[in-house]
Amino acid sequence: MSGEDFESLEKVLETCVPEAELREVRRLLFGKQLKKLNLPQSALDAAEEQDFDLKGYVFEASPEQLRPPRTVRVGLIQNKIVLPTDAPVLEQITALHKRVGEMVEVAAICGVNIVCFQEAWTMPFAFCTREREPWTEFAESAEDGLTTRFCIQLAKKYNMVVVSPILERDEIHGGTLWNTAVVVSNNGNVLGKSRKNHIPRVGDFNESTYYMEGNTSHPVFQTQFGKIAVNICYGRHHPLNWLMYSIHGAEIIFNPSATVGLLSEPIWPIEARNAAIANHCFTCAINRVGTVCATSHHDFGHFYGSSYVAAPDGSRSPGLSRTRDGLLVTEMDLNLNRQVADKWNFKMTGRYEMYAEELKKAIQHDFKPNIVKE
Amino acid sequence: MSGEDFESLEKVLETCVPEAELREVRRLLFGKQLKKLNLPQSALDAAEEQDFDLKGYVFEASPEQLRPPRTVRVGLIQNKIVLPTDAPVLEQITALHKRVGEMVEVAAICGVNIVCFQEAWTMPFAFCTREREPWTEFAESAEDGLTTRFCIQLAKKYNMVVVSPILERDEIHGGTLWNTAVVVSNNGNVLGKSRKNHIPRVGDFNESTYYMEGNTSHPVFQTQFGKIAVNICYGRHHPLNWLMYSIHGAEIIFNPSATVGLLSEPIWPIEARNAAIANHCFTCAINRVGTVCATSHHDFGHFYGSSYVAAPDGSRSPGLSRTRDGLLVTEMDLNLNRQVADKWNFKMTGRYEMYAEELKKAIQHDFKPNIVKE
Repeated sequence: MSGEDFESLEKVLETCVPEAELREVRRLLFGKQLKKLNLPQSALDAAEEQDFDLKGYVFEASPEQLRPPRTVRVGLIQNKIVLPTDAPVLEQITALHKRVGEMVEVAAICGVNIVCFQEAWTMPFAFCTREREPWTEFAESAEDGLTTRFCIQLAKKYNMVVVSPILERDEIHGGTLWNTAVVVSNNGNVLGKSRKNHIPRVGDFNESTYYMEGNTSHPVFQTQFGKIAVNICYGRHHPLNWLMYSIHGAEIIFNPSATVGLLSEPIWPIEARNAAIANHCFTCAINRVGTVCATSHHDFGHFYGSSYVAAPDGSRSPGLSRTRDGLLVTEMDLNLNRQVADKWNFKMTGRYEMYAEELKKAIQHDFKPNIVKE
Repeated sequence: MSGEDFESLEKVLETCVPEAELREVRRLLFGKQLKKLNLPQSALDAAEEQDFDLKGYVFEASPEQLRPPRTVRVGLIQNKIVLPTDAPVLEQITALHKRVGEMVEVAAICGVNIVCFQEAWTMPFAFCTREREPWTEFAESAEDGLTTRFCIQLAKKYNMVVVSPILERDEIHGGTLWNTAVVVSNNGNVLGKSRKNHIPRVGDFNESTYYMEGNTSHPVFQTQFGKIAVNICYGRHHPLNWLMYSIHGAEIIFNPSATVGLLSEPIWPIEARNAAIANHCFTCAINRVGTVCATSHHDFGHFYGSSYVAAPDGSRSPGLSRTRDGLLVTEMDLNLNRQVADKWNFKMTGRYEMYAEELKKAIQHDFKPNIVKE
């Protein structure tokens, strides 16, 4: 019972733990119990027919006197690649557009306002191979590539903000590649892009073979439904990265990722959730499912999905499946952020001035650590 | 089934989840399975007789060619107060010395090299009351107070480093109070002290009624058994605080705490563990058990114990009980820190120069967040 046989932690707990204890087990593991979101039957039917999981939860906030609730519905999509990795590049891209487009249609039926796809969603996550061809052919212009044009159509059709993480080809800087999330507003305008700030050199994934540390800093996108930011994949290991998006005002930080079981699975539920707690905001962690299937490369296990949403009060949604395509819909009242911030006061008590100074000293090559000896 | 009836998550899982699934549930929740530490029967007998839990686990590292294993045994002690809060102050202190002294004796039998007690361990954690008397009478000199002298005796007797978090009276600065951890070397010398860097203003705990933000920065103590630091209580919510101890070289960061169930319990397993992962070090989270019992104050629940150790590879020990006194002994090979760091490279990829600059800008009163609008 491991690897791909094991669908999800949540399912095992529900099956095995008696109701009397389950409530407390859930509280300890997942925080405040969330209501299930009442999803339209037509959406549930469509998900079943198209063979993906569809789940929905609600993060509530307290009523306030001066602010109405600021309710937004967020959709996270995790999916396998559709065609074999040796199919023609354009066919692979088109097949993914079709698959994810159908899932977005279901998201629209569920009233989703902002949807985010997984990291490099238009391609196999083949950066372990170190091969250039055909993988670099999946790169596109962030501003007017095939995929951005597709996302603009989706955004307009469904009045939905679309966060689209792709492999970017940057023609105005010598055709450089970047790992980039494109943010399209619900009016179908490209609001901007956010590049991956931290690049892994972990095991077979030295992604700096393909692209380097992003130069877009920590942009926050003011959408009609709230202020959002995108912390791509490996950036979730860096608490300062989350912090800086939050300091720039992000209310929801997406973390589109691609990560495999033996490497990171036990730390997956910890990092994005810690970031939601530490920064008084919502975080949305998305991981793909399936295997890389890059024919030239040895097997290194499967991407374990388990996409989830974490709230500033420490509560979190159950994860999607470890193995199946899925759409997670969460309704969140963004007023919760300030309510939790006013209670816990991490920004007020953060002493950032001290840390800015200490960090500046610490990066000097002749830094002397404060080590007390006997 | 909640509150004080519920002994621990780990116990429920062991009872309810079948063996076939339990292995994978444990991996997902706690990371790599730890070996149990083989503890002497005399220690187990003493613990049972003195009515406290005693548990032991081993964190292993891979063998290296050039470095021998750097094995250290660390003991965490969580306990209730012993006498009622209206007993004479000196009697309360002495009773706690006796109780914890007995537990340290058992730690010594288990071969513990470094022991850490809970926050403000010589007193009821009565800072919710806002009353000055008698609570400020529990304050002592860090250098030569009653409790430090007691810890020096323990350290010499058992050849053990003792981390002793107390309420400090700082006579050379006008008798100011601080929340301070005193570090006594295994030779019985006061190595130094580390003051609580971040002070809560949360609910009834505005501890700045008593003491302010610490001015000792982020000292790391080079002991015979490894480099240690102390991040007291509310500092665990601040990722920069953990980071800075780590940057100064800490291999083990203790987090002596006092926190109650409804406030923080679901986030307790997340924060110290995230810090171990993010900083490639061990973290030791300690929380007291029992209630405040400060007669003048309304009931706000019990301290939920659940002390645990987290490792840089994302694994963690089970928690001690939510309700009972306990001693958690972990044997850790500190070589694991560098092994994980060399694999994940968070410091190498941390881009601290960028963050030092960004943080410096962000603290200005006229800071302009990077918000992209349509």
